[in-house]
Amino acid sequence: MLASGHQMPLVGFGLWKVPADKAADIVYNAIKVGYRLFDGAYDYQNEKEAGQGIRRAIEDGLVKRDEIFVTTKLWNNYHQKDHAVQMAKAQNEAWGLGYIDLYLIHFPVALKYIEPEKLRYPAWWTDAEHKAIETAPIPLQDTWQALEEVVDLGITKSIGISNAQAQTLYDIQRYARHPISSLQIEHHPYLVQPELVELAREENIAITAYSSFGPQSFLELPPAFRARAKDVPLLFDVDIVREAAARVGKTPAQVLLRWATQRDIAVIPKSNDATRLRQNLEVGNDSFTLTSDEIKSIGALDKGLRFNDPGFYLDKPLRIFA
Amino acid sequence: MLASGHQMPLVGFGLWKVPADKAADIVYNAIKVGYRLFDGAYDYQNEKEAGQGIRRAIEDGLVKRDEIFVTTKLWNNYHQKDHAVQMAKAQNEAWGLGYIDLYLIHFPVALKYIEPEKLRYPAWWTDAEHKAIETAPIPLQDTWQALEEVVDLGITKSIGISNAQAQTLYDIQRYARHPISSLQIEHHPYLVQPELVELAREENIAITAYSSFGPQSFLELPPAFRARAKDVPLLFDVDIVREAAARVGKTPAQVLLRWATQRDIAVIPKSNDATRLRQNLEVGNDSFTLTSDEIKSIGALDKGLRFNDPGFYLDKPLRIFA
Repeated sequence: MLASGHQMPLVGFGLWKVPADKAADIVYNAIKVGYRLFDGAYDYQNEKEAGQGIRRAIEDGLVKRDEIFVTTKLWNNYHQKDHAVQMAKAQNEAWGLGYIDLYLIHFPVALKYIEPEKLRYPAWWTDAEHKAIETAPIPLQDTWQALEEVVDLGITKSIGISNAQAQTLYDIQRYARHPISSLQIEHHPYLVQPELVELAREENIAITAYSSFGPQSFLELPPAFRARAKDVPLLFDVDIVREAAARVGKTPAQVLLRWATQRDIAVIPKSNDATRLRQNLEVGNDSFTLTSDEIKSIGALDKGLRFNDPGFYLDKPLRIFA
Repeated sequence: MLASGHQMPLVGFGLWKVPADKAADIVYNAIKVGYRLFDGAYDYQNEKEAGQGIRRAIEDGLVKRDEIFVTTKLWNNYHQKDHAVQMAKAQNEAWGLGYIDLYLIHFPVALKYIEPEKLRYPAWWTDAEHKAIETAPIPLQDTWQALEEVVDLGITKSIGISNAQAQTLYDIQRYARHPISSLQIEHHPYLVQPELVELAREENIAITAYSSFGPQSFLELPPAFRARAKDVPLLFDVDIVREAAARVGKTPAQVLLRWATQRDIAVIPKSNDATRLRQNLEVGNDSFTLTSDEIKSIGALDKGLRFNDPGFYLDKPLRIFA
């Protein structure tokens, strides 16, 4: 149960890096397999197609709208109050499902406004045309108030933030009229952030983990993003992960996901493979359980190693995790 | 040169843990030795006496007021706008020097108001009477605006913050009318925070390091504070520090301080010993220089080990560094 009073599934399908031209079919198929949560973002530029897939599933009677949970996110260049509200409206239209379930601030960093049609995907952070990243003098409180307005307008049920530090969470909670329902963070055995997880728990903020497989998600990106991922073993190959997988008779990927869900942390893997789609979904129920020793040993792999760090991969770094 | 346009010395005398009944003499003596920066706080409860020491030195013709730089800090229970302004006025009266040079938010965490006379020193965080720490719904922006008012009133020349994370700094800079002049952080070879240091540099925020000797400062505190300090070697005993000290013919303490000042990071050690007082002051000039290899090797001792962490030593933790 989120702070907003709404429910969020523990396993979802992440739309990051899903090609727009395949998104509708992939989403439709994921619903067929049993997925109910879809994690999107303006940044991913496949919301319209993902929405089409969901609508088709609804039309075909596979699900009802209220059984589906859609997350989307506000991109950094649109933190100004009216932009943030406009973006929510545009996102809602793109998805075409009547409302959004969860609207997140993608990064707690306000960048200078750029007309949406002039932004370039992928990697807007480093787009050649806008190499010198310029921040905008917009307090996060303004942006949060815009999100609250989006709730009041009935466009989204719940609001939250991604990539926030502790002090950001505390500060938002101080001025929030609608509290933070969810925090989405990079979370895997190489980046555990136990204190942040504990804080979220204390503040009744549901955590969603992204990049649950650690380096795996970044190997296919351009070199700047990939550098840190090349220096460490894939989590699938780590002994304790393989051993736990062997013991429970599951895949290392399932163990990595279950390591999160068993601690009530939601996960949003993606896969193009039908078998893996089903396997990933399984980690949301009690079909297998890791021992508390396994949970601890996997967590002990922690290296504080962050892959999605604009302070590392940008030409002009934003040091938002320091 | 601070963002406010004022100058801050690179070496100061830290008043944390200086007994009130000795503070006047200690400060007077430090001025005699050559100290010009005094780092105090409401939390330290020796501002009045420190001010007396400075006033005596001025009366005796040792220094003029404008050659002295006084830092003081707003305690967590007084983040509400009017409280923060009142506290600045009270601090200014306590010091008795006409104005404050730098007024810092001590921790970016607003706690419930407690009448000053009901607070108990030391370790207000854990005072028996107020065991259950309660936060207060005061956005940091309100507190920052109070500090700006304190500048406008002519009570302080510059303002800043202590113990802030990157996202807090970015957010304050977004709404600041008077920018952050200084950031004070725990900074020693076991807690280097290179990204935060770099961010401060980019934002023209002068850094002051506290606890430059690492575990040393915490060994004399109660067990809860001390636990992390007992688990690591004293920095004075670490090979690279001793070797660098031997090479330059200085003490390990001087090397640890110079490691900061050589990177333009101010330090605020304290000492009761006349010789060490002089030695500590020496690190602010070019009387000796570490090689860039020494700077790097000492920085490579980094363990991300924070001693002053209320998330660790409080009964009801505040996870402000997660």
